[in-house]
Amino acid sequence: MTKDAVQHNTTHCIYFVAMGPPLFTKPSKEVIIMPVRIADAMWEGNLKDGKGRVKLGSGAFEGAYSFSSRFEEGAGANPEELIGAALAGCFSMALAHELAQSGYPPKRIYTTARVKIEKLEEGFKITSIALDTEAEVPGIGKQAFMEKAEITKKTCPVSKALTGTEIKLQAKLVNK
Amino acid sequence: MTKDAVQHNTTHCIYFVAMGPPLFTKPSKEVIIMPVRIADAMWEGNLKDGKGRVKLGSGAFEGAYSFSSRFEEGAGANPEELIGAALAGCFSMALAHELAQSGYPPKRIYTTARVKIEKLEEGFKITSIALDTEAEVPGIGKQAFMEKAEITKKTCPVSKALTGTEIKLQAKLVNK
Repeated sequence: MTKDAVQHNTTHCIYFVAMGPPLFTKPSKEVIIMPVRIADAMWEGNLKDGKGRVKLGSGAFEGAYSFSSRFEEGAGANPEELIGAALAGCFSMALAHELAQSGYPPKRIYTTARVKIEKLEEGFKITSIALDTEAEVPGIGKQAFMEKAEITKKTCPVSKALTGTEIKLQAKLVNK
Repeated sequence: MTKDAVQHNTTHCIYFVAMGPPLFTKPSKEVIIMPVRIADAMWEGNLKDGKGRVKLGSGAFEGAYSFSSRFEEGAGANPEELIGAALAGCFSMALAHELAQSGYPPKRIYTTARVKIEKLEEGFKITSIALDTEAEVPGIGKQAFMEKAEITKKTCPVSKALTGTEIKLQAKLVNK
């Protein structure tokens, strides 16, 4: 199994790197290789009349997208809602971890992402992503909850990748 | 229709802003409001044993995700492949436009994104997204094609949002 093969794999594994020849030498360093996630997109034709398909490597989703589904009201997916789903998904999961780590495991965290794309002088730009989160977290105080939500906004891996846009957060504790 | 209502809408529309009272005055400024795209994520429980669902606002996809589908080999979606799909989708569409604008409308553009997440000292990080694109573009020379692909890597809206990670590109012209 070459290093290249590992990088195309989507499974989590512990991979022992032999530090040089000869092959089959005893591994001298342990390296944890995290999953590499794959997605594909096919586009046929020009911008306005062309058509696209997008596919997740897990097989969970494959579907059409187009100029109309992105910039107008046409049916189909679009890159902005995929970004929104990635961020909302990452944020909800990471906030659950952050809260549980501090002694307050949540019952549920529900997050909506609103991704705004605008036409500026320099071209199209995703100018902001507004996160709106509601959480049921038994026992926690409002201030501690808000602090955890703000930390998660900055530290979740998808937030850290999206530094070219502004991420806004509204967080609400909805304990019954 | 309030400005707020427009921002929650996913349709492209031309919106006339009345510059002040009284209401029903003749609109004095035309503003183009682009779509705001929505996605939701629900997480229940803690990180390891919890479960999540993610949903695109268009309705094109709703599905499960979990610690296992994100960091191990479990079934389900994960935020990294959603990011990959957003970038591959945006890149393929934007490159088609870039090529058509320069007089070379493409037949097809097929892009794969490989999203790498790693556990570093400061926590999980999306360290790179490798794009691999193959395009059939009648009449274009290799150098001109490569230039357009490099420009698109920098200018597509999703690339411009993802400045917190490294985007790599391999581009190949596959004219028959």
